[in-house]
Amino acid sequence: MQKGILIVLSGFSGAGKGTLMKELLKTYDNYALSISMTTRNPRPGEEDGREYFFTNKENFEEKIAQNGLIEYAEYCGNYYGTPRDYVEKQLSAGKDVILEIEIQGMRKVKQMFPEMLPLFITPPSAAELKRRLTGRGTETAEVIEKRIQRAAQEAEGVEDYEYLIINDDLQTCVEEIHSIVQAAKRVPARNVGFINNIREELNVLSKGE
Amino acid sequence: MQKGILIVLSGFSGAGKGTLMKELLKTYDNYALSISMTTRNPRPGEEDGREYFFTNKENFEEKIAQNGLIEYAEYCGNYYGTPRDYVEKQLSAGKDVILEIEIQGMRKVKQMFPEMLPLFITPPSAAELKRRLTGRGTETAEVIEKRIQRAAQEAEGVEDYEYLIINDDLQTCVEEIHSIVQAAKRVPARNVGFINNIREELNVLSKGE
Repeated sequence: MQKGILIVLSGFSGAGKGTLMKELLKTYDNYALSISMTTRNPRPGEEDGREYFFTNKENFEEKIAQNGLIEYAEYCGNYYGTPRDYVEKQLSAGKDVILEIEIQGMRKVKQMFPEMLPLFITPPSAAELKRRLTGRGTETAEVIEKRIQRAAQEAEGVEDYEYLIINDDLQTCVEEIHSIVQAAKRVPARNVGFINNIREELNVLSKGE
Repeated sequence: MQKGILIVLSGFSGAGKGTLMKELLKTYDNYALSISMTTRNPRPGEEDGREYFFTNKENFEEKIAQNGLIEYAEYCGNYYGTPRDYVEKQLSAGKDVILEIEIQGMRKVKQMFPEMLPLFITPPSAAELKRRLTGRGTETAEVIEKRIQRAAQEAEGVEDYEYLIINDDLQTCVEEIHSIVQAAKRVPARNVGFINNIREELNVLSKGE
């Protein structure tokens, strides 16, 4: 079985990453979501090993020391990180693991998994991004402005991603991501075993007769 | 309109490149085949501008001097090359142009078109390659042996290609190539206009309000 691909998904707040991932998981069975580890307290309804792996500060810092996290960050006094063992188990089982993180995290992941596939999701235009943020109706004007400013900063890093995916229509976008992941499986670096085999066979055939 | 992609298709003799290209052109309308220029004489049934652009040695060498060929080679005393103007016209019209050449040609093309997409087609195994070459029934054992030896050499260059496509089932393979080409359109380097636009818009939005 070919090992799965580690997919890093980033994108502007309001690009629709959450819906996309949900639809991708519903449509195809080769995907798995990475589950983060955190030191923050579980909220009502959250389950250990589903939304997050919940742990305490001491254990988290031990994980860091053991190089057991692919990436981590501190946010509002709590740690958040990606446990390496869970991701590697899924990849070995042939699952393509989706990790939703920001650009700094993506760059750290790349050091440990140079073969990972970084995707950036964007709405078709900045005007549409603003419409989506406003349309939620749950954010103040100030929060929306902050998100736009943040998007302007994030836009500077787009070239660090392998693919830029425009989320205009949900279904089209899901198909596009799936095509990209399928295509990524055909890269020579992910087919070293096949290449070595056919080389050996060809050498035997061309010398043996 | 987004510019088309220049696809360079290489692969072992017997990998099924000809059939694949025919099927790809029949199934989707975004593809065009590059037409080579040659100084060899037309064979019965061949038409200028369809199988080849036929020309004489003097004109061909003038083309070379004018940098009017993407790549060229001499074979059995005749020149064969890829006229640049035809390819560029098709790309500008949004067509994805397929160029079937070998690895030396691919490397030359890459210098002039660093954005081109090099694909390598292989049968699922060396044994299957031999079966296909033998199955044609048109070649002597000696010719088949030569092709296998040549394939063994060609296999050394596979890592120079962006994608390695295993031609097991024709339809699956056609879909796979199409997916790869569609994915390639989402690479940031092929979306510079879009990226610049959204950056500008986001800057205006985040400063203007």
